[in-house]
Amino acid sequence: MNDWQLREVDRLVAAALAEDLGFGDVTSLSTIPPETTGRATFQAKDTGVLAGVPLLESVYRHLDPAIRVEVHLADGAALAPGMTIATVEGRAQPLLSGERVALNFLQFLSGIATRTARFVRLVDGTGARIVDTRKTVPGLRALSKYAVRVGGGHNHRFGLSDGVLIKDNHIRAAGGIGPAVARAREAAPHMLRVEVETETLAQVEEALAAGADVLLLDNMPLERLREAVARCQGQALCEASGGVNEATVRAIAEAGVDLISVGALTHSVTALDISLDWD
Amino acid sequence: MNDWQLREVDRLVAAALAEDLGFGDVTSLSTIPPETTGRATFQAKDTGVLAGVPLLESVYRHLDPAIRVEVHLADGAALAPGMTIATVEGRAQPLLSGERVALNFLQFLSGIATRTARFVRLVDGTGARIVDTRKTVPGLRALSKYAVRVGGGHNHRFGLSDGVLIKDNHIRAAGGIGPAVARAREAAPHMLRVEVETETLAQVEEALAAGADVLLLDNMPLERLREAVARCQGQALCEASGGVNEATVRAIAEAGVDLISVGALTHSVTALDISLDWD
Amino acid sequence: MNDWQLREVDRLVAAALAEDLGFGDVTSLSTIPPETTGRATFQAKDTGVLAGVPLLESVYRHLDPAIRVEVHLADGAALAPGMTIATVEGRAQPLLSGERVALNFLQFLSGIATRTARFVRLVDGTGARIVDTRKTVPGLRALSKYAVRVGGGHNHRFGLSDGVLIKDNHIRAAGGIGPAVARAREAAPHMLRVEVETETLAQVEEALAAGADVLLLDNMPLERLREAVARCQGQALCEASGGVNEATVRAIAEAGVDLISVGALTHSVTALDISLDWD
Amino acid sequence: MNDWQLREVDRLVAAALAEDLGFGDVTSLSTIPPETTGRATFQAKDTGVLAGVPLLESVYRHLDPAIRVEVHLADGAALAPGMTIATVEGRAQPLLSGERVALNFLQFLSGIATRTARFVRLVDGTGARIVDTRKTVPGLRALSKYAVRVGGGHNHRFGLSDGVLIKDNHIRAAGGIGPAVARAREAAPHMLRVEVETETLAQVEEALAAGADVLLLDNMPLERLREAVARCQGQALCEASGGVNEATVRAIAEAGVDLISVGALTHSVTALDISLDWD
Amino acid sequence: MNDWQLREVDRLVAAALAEDLGFGDVTSLSTIPPETTGRATFQAKDTGVLAGVPLLESVYRHLDPAIRVEVHLADGAALAPGMTIATVEGRAQPLLSGERVALNFLQFLSGIATRTARFVRLVDGTGARIVDTRKTVPGLRALSKYAVRVGGGHNHRFGLSDGVLIKDNHIRAAGGIGPAVARAREAAPHMLRVEVETETLAQVEEALAAGADVLLLDNMPLERLREAVARCQGQALCEASGGVNEATVRAIAEAGVDLISVGALTHSVTALDISLDWD
Amino acid sequence: MNDWQLREVDRLVAAALAEDLGFGDVTSLSTIPPETTGRATFQAKDTGVLAGVPLLESVYRHLDPAIRVEVHLADGAALAPGMTIATVEGRAQPLLSGERVALNFLQFLSGIATRTARFVRLVDGTGARIVDTRKTVPGLRALSKYAVRVGGGHNHRFGLSDGVLIKDNHIRAAGGIGPAVARAREAAPHMLRVEVETETLAQVEEALAAGADVLLLDNMPLERLREAVARCQGQALCEASGGVNEATVRAIAEAGVDLISVGALTHSVTALDISLDWD
Repeated sequence: MNDWQLREVDRLVAAALAEDLGFGDVTSLSTIPPETTGRATFQAKDTGVLAGVPLLESVYRHLDPAIRVEVHLADGAALAPGMTIATVEGRAQPLLSGERVALNFLQFLSGIATRTARFVRLVDGTGARIVDTRKTVPGLRALSKYAVRVGGGHNHRFGLSDGVLIKDNHIRAAGGIGPAVARAREAAPHMLRVEVETETLAQVEEALAAGADVLLLDNMPLERLREAVARCQGQALCEASGGVNEATVRAIAEAGVDLISVGALTHSVTALDISLDWD
Repeated sequence: MNDWQLREVDRLVAAALAEDLGFGDVTSLSTIPPETTGRATFQAKDTGVLAGVPLLESVYRHLDPAIRVEVHLADGAALAPGMTIATVEGRAQPLLSGERVALNFLQFLSGIATRTARFVRLVDGTGARIVDTRKTVPGLRALSKYAVRVGGGHNHRFGLSDGVLIKDNHIRAAGGIGPAVARAREAAPHMLRVEVETETLAQVEEALAAGADVLLLDNMPLERLREAVARCQGQALCEASGGVNEATVRAIAEAGVDLISVGALTHSVTALDISLDWD
Repeated sequence: MNDWQLREVDRLVAAALAEDLGFGDVTSLSTIPPETTGRATFQAKDTGVLAGVPLLESVYRHLDPAIRVEVHLADGAALAPGMTIATVEGRAQPLLSGERVALNFLQFLSGIATRTARFVRLVDGTGARIVDTRKTVPGLRALSKYAVRVGGGHNHRFGLSDGVLIKDNHIRAAGGIGPAVARAREAAPHMLRVEVETETLAQVEEALAAGADVLLLDNMPLERLREAVARCQGQALCEASGGVNEATVRAIAEAGVDLISVGALTHSVTALDISLDWD
Repeated sequence: MNDWQLREVDRLVAAALAEDLGFGDVTSLSTIPPETTGRATFQAKDTGVLAGVPLLESVYRHLDPAIRVEVHLADGAALAPGMTIATVEGRAQPLLSGERVALNFLQFLSGIATRTARFVRLVDGTGARIVDTRKTVPGLRALSKYAVRVGGGHNHRFGLSDGVLIKDNHIRAAGGIGPAVARAREAAPHMLRVEVETETLAQVEEALAAGADVLLLDNMPLERLREAVARCQGQALCEASGGVNEATVRAIAEAGVDLISVGALTHSVTALDISLDWD
Repeated sequence: MNDWQLREVDRLVAAALAEDLGFGDVTSLSTIPPETTGRATFQAKDTGVLAGVPLLESVYRHLDPAIRVEVHLADGAALAPGMTIATVEGRAQPLLSGERVALNFLQFLSGIATRTARFVRLVDGTGARIVDTRKTVPGLRALSKYAVRVGGGHNHRFGLSDGVLIKDNHIRAAGGIGPAVARAREAAPHMLRVEVETETLAQVEEALAAGADVLLLDNMPLERLREAVARCQGQALCEASGGVNEATVRAIAEAGVDLISVGALTHSVTALDISLDWD
Repeated sequence: MNDWQLREVDRLVAAALAEDLGFGDVTSLSTIPPETTGRATFQAKDTGVLAGVPLLESVYRHLDPAIRVEVHLADGAALAPGMTIATVEGRAQPLLSGERVALNFLQFLSGIATRTARFVRLVDGTGARIVDTRKTVPGLRALSKYAVRVGGGHNHRFGLSDGVLIKDNHIRAAGGIGPAVARAREAAPHMLRVEVETETLAQVEEALAAGADVLLLDNMPLERLREAVARCQGQALCEASGGVNEATVRAIAEAGVDLISVGALTHSVTALDISLDWD
């Protein structure tokens, strides 16, 4: 992450801390003498890919800049149970007050990176990219898409303004694939590619004829998918979507598509088990 | 939700729309004539518990107050595949622009409510409450805890300032359970209950002697759990945590605890499958 | 104050400076050469308890980090006329521009701490705590409650979400003290204590029978107060409120209550006289 | 108040409600059925001048627009014990949730208006204006100065950018009253008047010679004050400050000054007793 | 503008009003009785293209929703001296308080639309699009780009994240046009087109060989421009930039480029003369 | 600029960067290795007055504090083509990402300072001040007025709350110049001067009789202007406005006015040509 991205991280961390701390961590403030110090270790309890270390650093930068955060593993590192991610040392009150927020970020983002990495590994050698979608938890899109990259995936559109994706309803309203693509070429910014959602080979042909840059091949059986890819050759990128899971992704990739989009990377996140263990 | 909560909902929805729309939905704006209207239906594709309808309403209130949102099912309703949640009708451009954000909220919150309801059903008749934790996706705690209530669960602390929960580190820093509880009584606001984390029966006795209001019985085998509950009788509430899943929760509840806290309700959310189908 | 609280302080100070400086301190900017330096001393002009030094530091951190702020007395110090709180030295323009905001915070917060300390001293040895209320100047609740603690008082609820306080109207709407407490136990978070407002001994009995954790004994004559305390023994905390002033507080405390809440600590603040004297 | 001022009021009220409600009024939500309605009356318990009715209206507009607020007395009305300010009627939950914030604003602002009105009455017929100062509670300056106007007072500078007030330190740094005024004339915006703080008659002469528009006559004995006023005749406005209280203000006014500034109007506010009584 | 865009408009208008009104329009508030009403007309004083009417409406919606704004001409209308844009009628205080902010927006945006329209007219029939740049007045990019569209121009990238534009420095750092394009294809989102800045025909060839989607032909003499366009045929879009003004733009367009970007549309805005005339 | 002003600068720069960077500079991030460094020079391409250096410094402070910014010329410096303003050196990614925003600020503000300086030079020796107006680009008033001062001009009112300027409509609503001035004296803060707009000598007499502090002599022919100035002698400041341009300003100044206000200084800004040249 660069300094500009860290500003966004700091903003999200400050909001998360405000959400959790309210008017103060009454337990730590009342039971722990201010001068008490401690030391603790963020440790992996499961296998996966690490993401979110800059957020953990930000949490303690907010709560007490004097806390020493020693980072042992960077984002993207492969985790196995028992591996040490980072150690934190300093006044016990802020160390404890920040534990939950730091873990909430780390576990969520590592969960995304881990699942992404599993999909990426499954298509290894096929030339297909695993890409994310706009199915993200509200407020955390930039971080979620960062975690996808950490896991080896690529990003699709960030939002509705950085890509033209013409779906069924746009086609119907425009009166067909041809007119829809033509309108997009006329009125949308010329720096954006135009992608068209297709379900049949006839639609594939229509989209290619209309000059689409990318084809979304939605929920196609493998046979049809292969045929669609064949027809696109050299003309448009092919993106498969629908029915993608760990059991199906390899075959879909081997059908020759350029991109496979997977909503579950970000809409159903399983937190990776990471804990803060105290010395 | 009352009007005050809807203000918070509106704030989150506005932020989510800004995140997704950027400087505009270039696809809808370029391909769909502004005057084109449409009608679509939010439909359940899976079995579960609905949560998030006020957010769907807010999405369209932001994008075009002239869109008619007809709500068929309220938060808390049992969903089955094919059931209609709401219909939306109006100008096609804003209808399409809001689809993703509305679904992202609905699927996330219904996912929480659905899992919560499963746990609640599993302990039915035992007298144990299913409660959430602070293991929430950053920025969405209030909504997540709302969805837990919709699913029939109860809320534990909202954050660090509305309850005293003395864990191992607080105990060590304070020099024992007794001193830790005494300090909390002395310095924390008197309107907050004091809970103590325990793992052994000796700790249970110590916490009861110190006058704890609630005992967190962490990762105890069933036998020990039952014994701990027996010793608390009439003196303190008992909360079980650790190793709670759908397979184990019934037995834990039958051990007689008052509360069972489940981090997975909110830290690992599986989006419930809901779609927007166009007429 | 810890680093997290200082962030809130910085936010309030920035807002106060923006409120006062508008588009600039036209007097200092026009009459004082930028390179002119000066030195001044914050001095007590009256007897009291100091509160607000972190805000004074924050004011000058905002206006010119090069200003040297030497703090002589910390929050909680006993002030007498002529005592030096802090000296500030550096460029004269920012020194003068920050004077009023720094004094406004110092005088307001020291005013609260001073009055609180008077009440605390008056009940010395009785075992009763002086607690604040939600009768605070809007926007300054966290600071006001901080100043109460500096003065030796304790904090009651921060707001409506960290304690259940059942008043007359809640009782009427719920159909009696018993049902009101039962509902609160059922639906409010279990980490919050339940307090019931009572005016008669019959209500005291009813609240105890309902299992209230704390009793608010409102406007009771001393005799009745003593009797109420006697009945609570070991079962509930007793809080006296109403008609509390410096003349009455000792007798109320000697009636045996655990807590005495005083709205005037924060709703009618007399600024403590502090000035900035220039060398 | 005009619509623009009401936007600022709404902003302050929203912040005050957020400060008080946190994540919800757990008492009202748990003990009062949502459909229960009620009616209550804001009543004066003391004699004074009313200020803050638009804030009370804003509180309920935020919490539930369906609540009917019937205003009986407008800002500026003379209050006597038992007089009805407004009645509110609607759902009991939001009525109760807003009570404290509404009263905190009403009592604070009416406290300012009431004290201001007392000073204004004391100088009645003398031609002197009672004006406020920048000694205000941080964050509430605009409202505080509004309440001063409601009480019949006038406003001095809002902040450091809408008036040039040259004090002792500016004079010293500039090398005398003459150079200080000259610099201000040269560099400060020409639409602002220049006021000079004086303590002696020599300084008065110097300030008049320098062309000051307004003279601040600080802590002058009555005799000297009268002489200073005489010398200003027709050349500059005279403002008295220092040692102004209800016992001294009439004599100061009769010395012939144009303005008397009173810090205590806003820095030490005694809340006016107003309550919300339930039918 | 759709409802979502109007929310951004409202945000900018509120900020502009806050900037101008400070703590109030002291002139109107002091000299005009609150009940005085008035009527005034926004009139063009010059020839041009209108843009900004939604901002004028927003100004009065903020200051007094009771003001009647009758719009005679919509954004995009051709203006000639004396034409009536809108009439406003209602209370005189808010009418006057909003005059300057409304005019500041109207004149600035109409200035952009007017200049854009002049360029668009000059290339009429050539097939070239006039496009804007990122050379905009900070804070007003979305509005500025809206005004460009109103004037008949098209938008280039909104910012750095919705298009890949590889300039000289990127090429040098990447080690040539080929590697630079390859890296962008590998790491940038696949929905974004890749544009390469070129100055020579050799670079044009290199960029085409690398598979660039768009070529920026920077500061090329007409002859070279024509040759570059010829080589791109069917392979990449051609954008001319540099040295574009009203005297040169037609010849550049006739060289066959697809796009001509003009920084002066937005970086040097001449306000169009519009006034508010009172009845 | 002092530290307080730099905070406002930082706020505007952060907003401008967010506007431009969106979710990231996809070009630099994809084509330039993170460790690549570079060096570039901000250079004047035209003659003028420099303004905005603190903003350029702020841009790089935001994007990468490790970038070394060496400032060669300060705000107010006379620029000629080829002069070096500043050099920046460090990691190439943030250097490139900040280029456009830094230039947008520098060119806009230097454009204002340059034009102001031309007007100031034209009236040299006449005793007339060049002052700005409220005709500023929304959101940039403070910076624009800063640039006017850098160019040697003076500031008129910042906004509607720091000066009373009675125009035709105020006069009509109040029933004449006399009553309008009297009302302003009665109700507006006494620290603000009262200016009256006049077009005829009769109005000048009326305004002087009413005791106006400043006269706005609007669109007066030179002869009338001279006469108006003569009548004001010693009683009020004279400000000329209307029809002021580089051809007319000298004669207007020689008519003896104290102030000449020029809307075009800030409402129609021609960006000064400055570029970032890479080593």
